Amino acid sequence: MRLTCIYLIVAASSLGATDVSGLWIARMSGATLREPQYARVALTVDGGALVGRWNQLRIEGELTGSKVRLTLRNGDGKPAGELAGIVEGAEVSGDGNIETRGAEGRRGGGGPIAWRLVRPPKRAEGPKVWEFEPKEFYSNYSAAIAPVLHVFPGDTVRTWTIDSGGLDATLTRRSAGGNPETGPFYIEGALPGDTLVVHLNKVRPNRDTARSGSRVSLRAVTPGWAVNAKYAEGFSSEWKLDRAAGIARLANPSERMREYTVPILPMIGCLATAPAAGQSFRSVDLGPFGGNMDYNQMNEGATLMLPVFQPGALFFLGDGHAAMGDAELTGAALETSLDVEFTVELVEGSATAYPRLENKDYLMSMGIAGSLIDALQVATAQLAEWLAADYHLNDNEIALVMGTVLKYDVAEMVDPQINVVAKVPKAVLSRLR
Amino acid sequence: MRLTCIYLIVAASSLGATDVSGLWIARMSGATLREPQYARVALTVDGGALVGRWNQLRIEGELTGSKVRLTLRNGDGKPAGELAGIVEGAEVSGDGNIETRGAEGRRGGGGPIAWRLVRPPKRAEGPKVWEFEPKEFYSNYSAAIAPVLHVFPGDTVRTWTIDSGGLDATLTRRSAGGNPETGPFYIEGALPGDTLVVHLNKVRPNRDTARSGSRVSLRAVTPGWAVNAKYAEGFSSEWKLDRAAGIARLANPSERMREYTVPILPMIGCLATAPAAGQSFRSVDLGPFGGNMDYNQMNEGATLMLPVFQPGALFFLGDGHAAMGDAELTGAALETSLDVEFTVELVEGSATAYPRLENKDYLMSMGIAGSLIDALQVATAQLAEWLAADYHLNDNEIALVMGTVLKYDVAEMVDPQINVVAKVPKAVLSRLR
Repeated sequence: MRLTCIYLIVAASSLGATDVSGLWIARMSGATLREPQYARVALTVDGGALVGRWNQLRIEGELTGSKVRLTLRNGDGKPAGELAGIVEGAEVSGDGNIETRGAEGRRGGGGPIAWRLVRPPKRAEGPKVWEFEPKEFYSNYSAAIAPVLHVFPGDTVRTWTIDSGGLDATLTRRSAGGNPETGPFYIEGALPGDTLVVHLNKVRPNRDTARSGSRVSLRAVTPGWAVNAKYAEGFSSEWKLDRAAGIARLANPSERMREYTVPILPMIGCLATAPAAGQSFRSVDLGPFGGNMDYNQMNEGATLMLPVFQPGALFFLGDGHAAMGDAELTGAALETSLDVEFTVELVEGSATAYPRLENKDYLMSMGIAGSLIDALQVATAQLAEWLAADYHLNDNEIALVMGTVLKYDVAEMVDPQINVVAKVPKAVLSRLR
Repeated sequence: MRLTCIYLIVAASSLGATDVSGLWIARMSGATLREPQYARVALTVDGGALVGRWNQLRIEGELTGSKVRLTLRNGDGKPAGELAGIVEGAEVSGDGNIETRGAEGRRGGGGPIAWRLVRPPKRAEGPKVWEFEPKEFYSNYSAAIAPVLHVFPGDTVRTWTIDSGGLDATLTRRSAGGNPETGPFYIEGALPGDTLVVHLNKVRPNRDTARSGSRVSLRAVTPGWAVNAKYAEGFSSEWKLDRAAGIARLANPSERMREYTVPILPMIGCLATAPAAGQSFRSVDLGPFGGNMDYNQMNEGATLMLPVFQPGALFFLGDGHAAMGDAELTGAALETSLDVEFTVELVEGSATAYPRLENKDYLMSMGIAGSLIDALQVATAQLAEWLAADYHLNDNEIALVMGTVLKYDVAEMVDPQINVVAKVPKAVLSRLR
């Protein structure tokens, strides 16, 4: 379950010595909240009164000296919170009662909270390009891991990832295996309920070797075929990457595969934000936060949208593949280390339930679930919601568009959850009014 | 369960007045056989003895006057049948005992049978092009339906299909709905265990209209989305087909879809042979015999391979679509009537468990099953078997090829069984030795 954060906005009196006008970020905590909640707050002094917004709640309040009293109201005017606090330096803090909202609009119940307003982070200069040399690699997606770099929306990071087995560009072991990740990167200003937008500017192998599996996943083939499969011990699945020519070939090919080559289409297997509610997942896992999505369209030039569940988003990446068919059928694709450059942006106050991807040709919705049919159903529903939100289609129109041009990709079948992608071509969508 | 037909070969003495040398087709029936079994028989007179083959069984026998005695032996020399018969005119018939083989090599047990040899059909002339005007349309796949035309391998048929609702090119109702089929066509010489090869030379709408569904299949979307979907009664999903320009547009578009067009990519939803063992399926159904596979790659230029379960194969076709996204999400694609030209060929004595498709770019294996995961597993296994049989790859090599270039298509999600396709690009396979 995802908790929707509490919404509220404050207006500040401009009387006292302290100017409380402007934008704030509110952090709320309390015994009746499962985890801290956040809100974007705008305050304006209106005569002796404070007006403004606390997320989507309306604020009525007053500032007396350094003392603040705020009443929060829903869109229909009903009270949604009573807060009292004090201005101290660049912060405002206090306590009170606030109505929380659970998932799907259910009331989370009211309760006493402590709250604090701090000013949103401001960048000192324009967008920056960071060169980041990773030193440690993490094999969990978790907000408990301290960020390795703080960046602002608009910033670009140039870095690299080690392969899923822990080897870097020089084949030096830098970590245990299991998809060790570069990051997490803290994106200033990101709050739960936002969307982290990641532009994959560069996704390139930084070495000339890769290693894949050489057996078919038991999950993607009939038991009848699997029990009769005859595999050779020590069959080599080492690959050579001819990066100049853009092709991969086996390093020690069997006779029949001596001339076998596949195009190099580098992709990132793992791209994640830190999950919600104190959860920590192994980096082989995947979910609403992304993670080991293993989709062969996570290429250079693509843009990924990930829901944010933690302040700063905490963006992880790793598990590079030089090439991969659908579903990562051999359990490991052409695993290699990557040079990666990405630019982050933030969509405030709006998030989808699952990750989305976009490239020059397609809008792509991930459906991540424990079974293939559930994953497909989620992908379909997520794409339908995308078409409703961004193209303002009604449900009949959505059916017609999806019925004529939707395509499914089975991204991944071999990880703890399955990832199915529903996609529609942008060329066709461009003909919608 | 598919029964593998009984195998046997006969050698005939060339002594008597009747020359039994040459090729025959054997039909066997008996209380211990579930249904008649067939074999291709070759007889050669070798001195006073008959030698030859009864499918893959070796024949030792003799011809005395018009009396024939045959002993059938397995590859390892063990007796597999004892038959006695008599030559009468152009036929040989008799009785005896024969060992039957069930599916997966299990012994079916022996039993008394009646048998008859007839000469294989011979065409009087070279390959022929038939113009076939259908008059009746059938909504079952069944060997109980009398064939509408007998053709030989190598022949071409030019015909047409009505739409899934029963309307022809002039929008005249010719049948009830439910995928009424053109055919069945009897292919001379086809026996159970063969493969019927169908080249789709022409697949074109023969009118300027189509009709689709306008709601999303409940099977392909989350229950949460489905229960909240708001559909308008009477929302028009009539389409106009601009066949010259190759695009489809809504006949009565909503404002947002006024400029919405999709490319016309005509396909045949239903292509079937008659199923095995007295079964009759509604033509909305699908299975090892093909049927309502609803795959949007069943286009002009593609070649379909269907297992044969009945003498003559009995080929049905219908359910034309002018365009369709993956999975036939709206239950009905752009349903229309088609002009179709196809050429049939026969692969004797070899069949796959499920249909295959090939076009200029891909080898495609159908996986047809009751659930999405089962269908995907079947498709994967079928493709693996194809790579083993035709490219002589071992299982490690199969894993490497599939792991690097396999793609899945979710052909169809809305019919009694689900169809998932596993495919590999021929360009990559051409680099195998």
